[in-house]
Amino acid sequence: MKIALDAMGGDFAPDMTIAGAIEAVSEYDLEVILVGDKQQVVGALKDKRYPSGKISVFHASEVVEMHESPSAAIRKKRDSSIRKAVELVKNHEADAAVSAGNSGVAMATSLFLLGKSPNVDRPAIATIMPSLTGFFVLIDAGANVDCKPENLLQFAVMGNAYYKAIFNVPKPRVALLSIGEEDTKGNELTKEAFKYLKSADINFIGNIEGKDIFSGNADVIVCDGFIGNIVLKVSEGLAETVIKMLRREIVNVATGRIGYMMIKPAIKNFKKKTDYSEYGGAPLLGINGTCIISHGRSSSKAIKNAIKVSAEMTKKKVHETIARTLGGFVAQAKYEG
Amino acid sequence: MKIALDAMGGDFAPDMTIAGAIEAVSEYDLEVILVGDKQQVVGALKDKRYPSGKISVFHASEVVEMHESPSAAIRKKRDSSIRKAVELVKNHEADAAVSAGNSGVAMATSLFLLGKSPNVDRPAIATIMPSLTGFFVLIDAGANVDCKPENLLQFAVMGNAYYKAIFNVPKPRVALLSIGEEDTKGNELTKEAFKYLKSADINFIGNIEGKDIFSGNADVIVCDGFIGNIVLKVSEGLAETVIKMLRREIVNVATGRIGYMMIKPAIKNFKKKTDYSEYGGAPLLGINGTCIISHGRSSSKAIKNAIKVSAEMTKKKVHETIARTLGGFVAQAKYEG
Repeated sequence: MKIALDAMGGDFAPDMTIAGAIEAVSEYDLEVILVGDKQQVVGALKDKRYPSGKISVFHASEVVEMHESPSAAIRKKRDSSIRKAVELVKNHEADAAVSAGNSGVAMATSLFLLGKSPNVDRPAIATIMPSLTGFFVLIDAGANVDCKPENLLQFAVMGNAYYKAIFNVPKPRVALLSIGEEDTKGNELTKEAFKYLKSADINFIGNIEGKDIFSGNADVIVCDGFIGNIVLKVSEGLAETVIKMLRREIVNVATGRIGYMMIKPAIKNFKKKTDYSEYGGAPLLGINGTCIISHGRSSSKAIKNAIKVSAEMTKKKVHETIARTLGGFVAQAKYEG
Repeated sequence: MKIALDAMGGDFAPDMTIAGAIEAVSEYDLEVILVGDKQQVVGALKDKRYPSGKISVFHASEVVEMHESPSAAIRKKRDSSIRKAVELVKNHEADAAVSAGNSGVAMATSLFLLGKSPNVDRPAIATIMPSLTGFFVLIDAGANVDCKPENLLQFAVMGNAYYKAIFNVPKPRVALLSIGEEDTKGNELTKEAFKYLKSADINFIGNIEGKDIFSGNADVIVCDGFIGNIVLKVSEGLAETVIKMLRREIVNVATGRIGYMMIKPAIKNFKKKTDYSEYGGAPLLGINGTCIISHGRSSSKAIKNAIKVSAEMTKKKVHETIARTLGGFVAQAKYEG
């Protein structure tokens, strides 16, 4: 198993990406191809210790910056580290690609070079979020801002295959994000999508309301990419705000500082349990290949885990499963229609 | 100033609503008409002390239950406490109505009896939420699940008028909820709405992303009612989940319990500062009259504050301002078009 890692992508590249690659090859049975400026990458690798033969370097002369637009990057930076990493997957020289660089460019490049899976209309981003009892997958987390009901069905099938592969759960509980539990509650899109999901061969448990997404009652939560992005960002923003406000109040009360010291181990445990960098990034599902997009601020651990998840997805053939399952729907629709 | 209060609405009615009414008339220069079963309300009032002449009772023989549908309640329960409270506003016997009962029914009843304001296509719910620096208004928080760009413009104008009246801010900063700050980011609805908001006579500061809604950078945040409801509920759900998870971790570490005791005053201050029951409920804006819908679990303080806010909205003529401002847009559109 060979994973192509965009060594130049991310706020702390290439040091952090290289550290993540070393952790990954030390811990797992896989190889990493570091894609980026050869001189810089080889220089950074020189004093490091890692299992020999498990890391190689592939030269790419350009780097995509965080502010660049996908169309411009695809048109102009034909030798970028993101593009070269995806090309290795396209040419079967790597099994999967991982990038913590410009996420819009990483997404557009992998879609452009690898193409959509058979029977997929709209590839989607699947993000892992913490719940009261574990983790759930939110899909689509931002790839498609305007969706049709059929798209939501495809997101459900893709999220289902991904959750099964990553969490080893045979029948993930799939829910549709809406504003009430009854099938009559929702907007035009979700009311129509509800019917599709109900008839699909997945463990569809119905609508889920915003207040329940963190309850642990659903494993895969389906929505359009506009709402998915907002839910993801509101959650991040609120969590940060609560912590900031609490800290401000704590230092203001007499016993606050010492009390805070005493609960600090609990806060650390809490952070550890809700740390979704454990899953290292979000795949773009529904393309011909495995491509994981990690956060620009990824730690070496997040990079290591993204590499692991990409290997796991390859091994479990997630994208083949998606194409096959959706192919079944298409065949059935033709038969019926 | 006379406020009609649905005495039978809410999980703890009529005791809690009556307690809220007494707090309100004791503190503010206004009268409350308690609408509900006369025998029950008079009985509950009997031993209470309050300024004489400031509370009266108006009989309504029926109560709408929490599970009833708006259409059935409007058709069948013509003598319900919600309906009678709104009728008092319609007949100019009260200046505003407040209900903590079935919120769908309260909304539908006030729209049905009072009608839409001139120039308003879709009335909307404005909800107050806490931010890092104070509070912001989210509009629409759930009245309209499928919207057009013009609706979002009207929500902006209505939220603007409401914020001005309640917080005494001359030029509230109005933002559009989207997935990126640039005007090119968003879905079809928000990209079109952006143009409308930009040309409106409000202090429009552009798009705001989900992660920034709690930052205090915007006073009024505009979105369709489907997303508004989800944002509101996700926020409530996440806040509860974080507290539950933290508590679970705190009791699990050796010094946790005692540390928790020491930061407890800080948590209390935090809760006080973020307690939006201070604003007691959410008005349905864009109808011919003032109607505030409070949470079913409202405390007497929340009821008191809803009464205060409804009086404030009446005094500042919020719904007249909305009709006038939107009338200006309509006149201008006719002139230009």
